[in-house]
Amino acid sequence: MELSAKEIAEKINGIITGKNNIKISGISDLKNARKNQISFILSPKFLKEAEESQAEVIISDSVEKINKKTVIKVKNVRTAYIAVIHLFYPEKKIVDYTSEKAVIGKNFKKGKNVYIDDFVVIKDDVQLGDNVYIGANVCIGNSVKIGNNTKINPLVSIYDGTEIGESVLIHSGTVIGSDGFGFTEDNGKIIKIPQIGFVKIGNGVEIGANCTIDRGSFGPTIINDNVKLDNLVHVAHNVEIGEGTLIAAQTGIAGSTKIGKHCIIGGQVGFVDHITIGNFVKIGSQAGVSKDIPDGAAITGTPARPIKELRRSEAYMMRLEELFKQVNELVKNK
Amino acid sequence: MELSAKEIAEKINGIITGKNNIKISGISDLKNARKNQISFILSPKFLKEAEESQAEVIISDSVEKINKKTVIKVKNVRTAYIAVIHLFYPEKKIVDYTSEKAVIGKNFKKGKNVYIDDFVVIKDDVQLGDNVYIGANVCIGNSVKIGNNTKINPLVSIYDGTEIGESVLIHSGTVIGSDGFGFTEDNGKIIKIPQIGFVKIGNGVEIGANCTIDRGSFGPTIINDNVKLDNLVHVAHNVEIGEGTLIAAQTGIAGSTKIGKHCIIGGQVGFVDHITIGNFVKIGSQAGVSKDIPDGAAITGTPARPIKELRRSEAYMMRLEELFKQVNELVKNK
Amino acid sequence: MELSAKEIAEKINGIITGKNNIKISGISDLKNARKNQISFILSPKFLKEAEESQAEVIISDSVEKINKKTVIKVKNVRTAYIAVIHLFYPEKKIVDYTSEKAVIGKNFKKGKNVYIDDFVVIKDDVQLGDNVYIGANVCIGNSVKIGNNTKINPLVSIYDGTEIGESVLIHSGTVIGSDGFGFTEDNGKIIKIPQIGFVKIGNGVEIGANCTIDRGSFGPTIINDNVKLDNLVHVAHNVEIGEGTLIAAQTGIAGSTKIGKHCIIGGQVGFVDHITIGNFVKIGSQAGVSKDIPDGAAITGTPARPIKELRRSEAYMMRLEELFKQVNELVKNK
Repeated sequence: MELSAKEIAEKINGIITGKNNIKISGISDLKNARKNQISFILSPKFLKEAEESQAEVIISDSVEKINKKTVIKVKNVRTAYIAVIHLFYPEKKIVDYTSEKAVIGKNFKKGKNVYIDDFVVIKDDVQLGDNVYIGANVCIGNSVKIGNNTKINPLVSIYDGTEIGESVLIHSGTVIGSDGFGFTEDNGKIIKIPQIGFVKIGNGVEIGANCTIDRGSFGPTIINDNVKLDNLVHVAHNVEIGEGTLIAAQTGIAGSTKIGKHCIIGGQVGFVDHITIGNFVKIGSQAGVSKDIPDGAAITGTPARPIKELRRSEAYMMRLEELFKQVNELVKNK
Repeated sequence: MELSAKEIAEKINGIITGKNNIKISGISDLKNARKNQISFILSPKFLKEAEESQAEVIISDSVEKINKKTVIKVKNVRTAYIAVIHLFYPEKKIVDYTSEKAVIGKNFKKGKNVYIDDFVVIKDDVQLGDNVYIGANVCIGNSVKIGNNTKINPLVSIYDGTEIGESVLIHSGTVIGSDGFGFTEDNGKIIKIPQIGFVKIGNGVEIGANCTIDRGSFGPTIINDNVKLDNLVHVAHNVEIGEGTLIAAQTGIAGSTKIGKHCIIGGQVGFVDHITIGNFVKIGSQAGVSKDIPDGAAITGTPARPIKELRRSEAYMMRLEELFKQVNELVKNK
Repeated sequence: MELSAKEIAEKINGIITGKNNIKISGISDLKNARKNQISFILSPKFLKEAEESQAEVIISDSVEKINKKTVIKVKNVRTAYIAVIHLFYPEKKIVDYTSEKAVIGKNFKKGKNVYIDDFVVIKDDVQLGDNVYIGANVCIGNSVKIGNNTKINPLVSIYDGTEIGESVLIHSGTVIGSDGFGFTEDNGKIIKIPQIGFVKIGNGVEIGANCTIDRGSFGPTIINDNVKLDNLVHVAHNVEIGEGTLIAAQTGIAGSTKIGKHCIIGGQVGFVDHITIGNFVKIGSQAGVSKDIPDGAAITGTPARPIKELRRSEAYMMRLEELFKQVNELVKNK
């Protein structure tokens, strides 16, 4: 597909300065852009990089002119460039198709335009909404419900009883509904606590590759609307993650811990079990969180504490050598 | 299924106080229980929660009476409530079945009542015991042996030569027997050390979702009886994990390290290679273990050290600002 | 297969001392070796272990005689024992075969001797080189290219547009090309940044089990030649890993970070986004790397700093109690 700079400017409500008729065939960042591609700058500090980019047309919400470039000035560069991505990479309509090589259980219900790829296994009493895409070799257990517009990529495993909302995106290798890690002891013998709960995932959730989300011991493990999980995230039994919270890769959340809404959590963070994290909390990468955290806190470190406090403490640690010398001196001269 | 409170009390050897004839159709924790469900309290500190629960019948080993509730008093509440779960969720008998859509190699041997689901691939010289369940899309390499009553969930990959014991439970996405991470250098060139060992898993082992257990470089990587691994655990080549040890999610054990019996290991712990951890060792989450640990130790932190010592050290660190001020004062007044 | 000690010595250019005619049927390490197997010692400090080993023939580059054993003296014991492994475990030639139970898309091109196992799904416009092995239940998206002599183990997911070089080895459960973790906000609403880049993997790369390598946001995520990744490693969008770098298990690299050539990186290390790590850098396990690191540095800890500096700092911390006492004394006697 090709669009002129002018056509793109119109579609994103931008004001164009420079050549209107340049033909554009794609979008990229400044570094990777080729000659017929449009690019964008997130702030004026990328001006020099923009000048050096091969892109001939640049979207910006901060500058109107760039040397030798055509500029499209918009209100919000981030939403504008995402709109342009959608122009060049429109989402494919889901075609109604069930592979002859899929195996579908009893009492199956599905909506309109559902794609079920090869070697999918769907057990009994499963319900899929409209425009659902089930990738190759996905395994879906009994009594699973999946809402409209949800896409499951290849090689995902969804255990019995899982409920998944609308417009959810799940990447390959993720496992949803496996047993929580629950054992007790009786006279020195380890006994498994059967895990009879389930997993409930809201709308607009994205789950990265190779994540694991355990079923509740009793009742649900809950991932609320618009939560975004990166890759290799572990969510234990009966955890609840609040609406709109973002969690980076390799973070793990132990059993029954509750995380609030709109939190931003770094990678490789660990949460102990049975704690409550407030809303709008920010947590630095590799933090170890072992107690309740109030709304709006910004914490990091192990044990996690306010970022400013940790930075001050680190600064003191860097000066320990000096302190030891001073004290040594004082002791000598006593 | 429905049982009366009295019937349940009889099955778990409990003494009932209150209404004998309440009909019960399931079990849940206090919070999630609905009206016709039975619940339980692990200690008297949950009394208030029990009163507020919708459950009409409560199992306990600590109290005999709860306001408006029927109570079943037992000797051990944990084993009693597990027994009740098994009443309502009896384990399904494995049906003898091999999907026409599975592919089975040469010289295959299997016991009684073995279930092999769709799109399973089993290579040559594989042996399965009685009551084995192989979930959909599982891949099993050559010369693999799996003991009685073992269940492999969908989408597990088991490489050539793996030996798995009886009553083992393996969750989706787990990989057993992939190559250990072994390389050497020759004149600046990286050379792979072929990994020709295997993995040996004992009886009663549970392995969570998306774990990775590497084959030995030579000889076996060993997971002994009743070891329980949570999700996303990494076990490197030639590691040995002792009987009855529990390891929480995202922990990693480097090559040839030996972990003792009945240890309890937190999540996101890292072990360096070639160390020995004793029996009955407790290790806190996110610890970094870089040397041998004696029997019975309780350690945490990076580098890991006795928990009490670490806590004291942390307390000192919190007071560093104060110390700097004191020394500053002393230096000034010298 | 059986070879005499003499035959093995000839094949690895070694000088034999002891019995020439001992029949050898395999190779193992000292501990696991059985009677008819050959073994090796990496240095004289394993002499005692060698004497106690059941192996009758020992390869060494440091000693010529071991009590009661036949010794083959070589120039480099590591390359010699690898050569012997290849003698007993020669790499299987890839047979040209496409399972009738695989599903292959349009416009498929493949070289000579390509093995495609059962339940593989290959989408449109895919190209495979010579001697490629695609394991069971592997899913390959549109427009994927895979070079000669590359082996993909079962249950790997490769998304659209991925480019994989020659002689690459990928273990089960790994996901290549899933979406990077990219979101922006518009009036409090989280908006996904469509990830339209791809993944480019060089020659001689090995990727362990259950790794996740995200596609670029724009342009490629790059794994250069001879990079070796252990299990459960996370590589975010637009990361670049330099030639010959080794990364141990469970390490995570955030978006757009660039890692140099010939680095050695421990397990469970975390890298923040948008930093640059030099060449020949060594990083200790569990380090948290949050800024650029120069060529040749050896760092560890969180925040990561030079290993010597960290060790000194740790030593001071161990002595804090003593310091507090001294200061307390000084304050009292002021």
